[in-house]
Amino acid sequence: MAETKSGELMEKIVSLCKRRGFIFQSSEIYGGLNGFWDYGPLGADLKRNVKEFWWNTMTRWRDDVAGLEATIIMHPKIWKASGHVDTFSDPMVDCKTCKARFRADQMNEIPCPQKPSKMSNECHGEKTEARPFNLMFETTVGPIKTDDSLAYLRPETAQAIFAQFKNVMETARQKVPFGIAQMGKAFRNEVTPRNFTFRSREFEQMELEFFIRPDEAVEAITGTVARPLGPGHPGEPQPNWGWQMWHQYWVEERIRFYENIGLPRTTLEEYWQKPEELAHYARATVDLLFKFPFGTQELEGIAARSDFDLSQHQRCSGRPMTVFDEELKAAWPKLDPARQTELRDRYRQARLKYLTKAGETVEAAEKQAQADAEALTKGYYVPHVIEPSAGVDRLTLALISNAYCEDQAPDEKGKLESRIVMRFHPRIAPLKVAVFPLLKNKPELVAKAREILALLRPHMTAFYDEAGAIGRRYRRQDEAGTPFGVTIDFDTLGEKGPELKDTVTLRERDSMKQERVRIADLLPLLLEKIR
Amino acid sequence: MAETKSGELMEKIVSLCKRRGFIFQSSEIYGGLNGFWDYGPLGADLKRNVKEFWWNTMTRWRDDVAGLEATIIMHPKIWKASGHVDTFSDPMVDCKTCKARFRADQMNEIPCPQKPSKMSNECHGEKTEARPFNLMFETTVGPIKTDDSLAYLRPETAQAIFAQFKNVMETARQKVPFGIAQMGKAFRNEVTPRNFTFRSREFEQMELEFFIRPDEAVEAITGTVARPLGPGHPGEPQPNWGWQMWHQYWVEERIRFYENIGLPRTTLEEYWQKPEELAHYARATVDLLFKFPFGTQELEGIAARSDFDLSQHQRCSGRPMTVFDEELKAAWPKLDPARQTELRDRYRQARLKYLTKAGETVEAAEKQAQADAEALTKGYYVPHVIEPSAGVDRLTLALISNAYCEDQAPDEKGKLESRIVMRFHPRIAPLKVAVFPLLKNKPELVAKAREILALLRPHMTAFYDEAGAIGRRYRRQDEAGTPFGVTIDFDTLGEKGPELKDTVTLRERDSMKQERVRIADLLPLLLEKIR
Repeated sequence: MAETKSGELMEKIVSLCKRRGFIFQSSEIYGGLNGFWDYGPLGADLKRNVKEFWWNTMTRWRDDVAGLEATIIMHPKIWKASGHVDTFSDPMVDCKTCKARFRADQMNEIPCPQKPSKMSNECHGEKTEARPFNLMFETTVGPIKTDDSLAYLRPETAQAIFAQFKNVMETARQKVPFGIAQMGKAFRNEVTPRNFTFRSREFEQMELEFFIRPDEAVEAITGTVARPLGPGHPGEPQPNWGWQMWHQYWVEERIRFYENIGLPRTTLEEYWQKPEELAHYARATVDLLFKFPFGTQELEGIAARSDFDLSQHQRCSGRPMTVFDEELKAAWPKLDPARQTELRDRYRQARLKYLTKAGETVEAAEKQAQADAEALTKGYYVPHVIEPSAGVDRLTLALISNAYCEDQAPDEKGKLESRIVMRFHPRIAPLKVAVFPLLKNKPELVAKAREILALLRPHMTAFYDEAGAIGRRYRRQDEAGTPFGVTIDFDTLGEKGPELKDTVTLRERDSMKQERVRIADLLPLLLEKIR
Repeated sequence: MAETKSGELMEKIVSLCKRRGFIFQSSEIYGGLNGFWDYGPLGADLKRNVKEFWWNTMTRWRDDVAGLEATIIMHPKIWKASGHVDTFSDPMVDCKTCKARFRADQMNEIPCPQKPSKMSNECHGEKTEARPFNLMFETTVGPIKTDDSLAYLRPETAQAIFAQFKNVMETARQKVPFGIAQMGKAFRNEVTPRNFTFRSREFEQMELEFFIRPDEAVEAITGTVARPLGPGHPGEPQPNWGWQMWHQYWVEERIRFYENIGLPRTTLEEYWQKPEELAHYARATVDLLFKFPFGTQELEGIAARSDFDLSQHQRCSGRPMTVFDEELKAAWPKLDPARQTELRDRYRQARLKYLTKAGETVEAAEKQAQADAEALTKGYYVPHVIEPSAGVDRLTLALISNAYCEDQAPDEKGKLESRIVMRFHPRIAPLKVAVFPLLKNKPELVAKAREILALLRPHMTAFYDEAGAIGRRYRRQDEAGTPFGVTIDFDTLGEKGPELKDTVTLRERDSMKQERVRIADLLPLLLEKIR
């Protein structure tokens, strides 16, 4: 695909998405709605498979992660505590002449609505100063519109996890280190939605908040804090891991996840945010980028967020977010006094830094930091957190972009013609297998094909197609990304003798290789290939 | 449970939901948000299992239904066309004295805020006339708040299906009769949310719109329209089915669905709406009711909605919603002229009725109805629809209520004690199996238990628990509704001789029966039981 211009490629992908029913414009019959996209039959199942695999990998197949499904509309104080009410905004400029509103940082790329030959920062319209525009969608809960009834559509799923941290930890009988995972819709009133489904106003996230001990507690318990030795997966979690090891662990776990659904490491880029790019609460953030046709862009961010979020909710709700750590309590008295002083002081400094940033007075901050450090010595602390946060829609788009391929395939007469094939990993392909009777007007073929469909369908998504020449049916499934095709022909019925009776042709999408398979072997063979 | 007072039972259920992590109040640490509920680890997986089984049953295991996943925020004209902007409202009364707002029909059950000894319709506060209050949540899309940027959170998932009808039909290569299924969040700004998660402001729906031929087309093609002969499942769909047969079919299919997840027919009630209760567009609606502790309430409605919805979107968007039916086109010329006249006229009358209701002038309606009837003779019509519409949250609550059970179980010393057990059908139980090493301080037991966990976990949700006496661990899983427990003991290790080596104890939740099972047989045995 290197030779294809990226704009052209993107057009082809958008066109295939519509033609095959992966993605439609929302409300298309009413002219569409900017920044909103619907998933058609294939897209809905592709997305479901991605989410299912994430949910299995991140919660069901692990002992140390519990799931959560919280509401989209939550108490507005959550967004005050998280900082979204005050700082989740873009700077906007109004044009007093044409009344249009622009994102201040995009005026050099957006044409003036009245004089499109000029960019909006170059036209003569009189502009206001830039003012912050909050990206949260607002609504009103309850029958009366007042300031008290104002609420927001969540701009991220993460905050619900922090708000329910205690409930989940207690009911799931978990102890730090452990995580809480959530998938679900989030909303951002983007000023300029763009790049198809990449930056849309309604989207879906898959987020894990993995809660860990502060480094001071790790050191008190194990005597050391392990530091990353170099790149690569650090292996099974160890008691002496601090935030750096856990961060590296999750970066590598997430890359494995992408590899497991058909995005090899070579399609990804790891970007370590520079100190000046980090959010104020973050100690380190790695972005996993994917080479989209429109540029290399973020798929997922893995951030070490310190204890900022839980501390904020503790401060704003007045409800404790501390955990009690028996091992820490037992370890502390055994430390020599110098070590105790050093750890206590380091912890106090970190808490002081947070409390000062959070806006406490110097006096209050110092008092609280002192109390927090004292609590540490008794086994209490606010956990730190590592957050792998992925976007479902941009991942789905990455999978579609990566799968899209044009090659040559022989037509009915053996003449090569170009084909479009979606090379989805079988694990996430919306349809796993298509079942074709060679001819639709032969009842024995149709009956046998129906029988095989009934055999496979309880175990995998299976599509039945009897319409048109077999080559055209293969081509349709190539565009749908169906990895396997099963054709029932006269050999299957035993018309060419007993050796081929009860065998079918199994066709592989990418290689187009066809092999003869016994019906009795078909289900286990396919189950093996799609697992 | 008959002896338990329903209020008490409901309290016990709410308490178990919180204690075991099924359902929490949204934003609890900030005092909660009325009408919003979060699902904890067990609740999230219970709900996922319900949705997965619905999606499989309704789309993946059928040839004639395609899936869709549309956005929550859609073009506001959709809600104008559907009638929600004009009529989706409750009558509200304001009290000029205390400034509170009440639903007019609930004033005799809601106490006056200032004088709670009186109901609000009896107190002395001066009240306004009742005024309609629209139940749709409003928001604004884009950086400028104007009437043009007003949008709604969808109050139902159905309308997206109608809006995308053509796109889905074409890309999924479907022909009438076929359906489009969607699951997803919907929002209603209920004035009085109540009954735990039953009536909440943010909830999830599972809706199918199943598109069928108008009866006139069925009659033209097959010569007759089959009528229901009596109660019960009418069997496999037939070409001569009109809306009544299809409606009966879907009522029975939906009851089967509930039976398959542990709600037997005896827990349900079928309520046929009386003519005066029907929505104006509906020809018949059956409500499936469940006996909740707080009363017998609707789980699902199955409505025959005629061609109202697609016709409305055709009128309001100007985009055709008609389909071309080859069989109808071929059949029509073969009808005798008297039959042609009769069918054409019957169809014209039905269209006229719709168009008049839709607000067209008499003249315009007659002209359009005539054109529609003419189109029918060429094979074109707007499909009719049967809509089974279920609520995920109320179904989840029904499953929890139905599963909740108190009985007696022997403790460690054989003494009977009361236990709470959630008798979920294994198909939807959040955890399928729990794995217990008899003792946590015997490394061989723990290692063996870990091995068995690793064997089962890729195939089902499996929970590992080593903490506390085995009886207490069983009791915890009873409350979680885990249908099977596997205990690894010294026999498993072969300490009592070779016969019991590599066997485990399999305990069944409801009967509490324990049997000895070979590890090699465990996976297939459990897979069979949870399917």
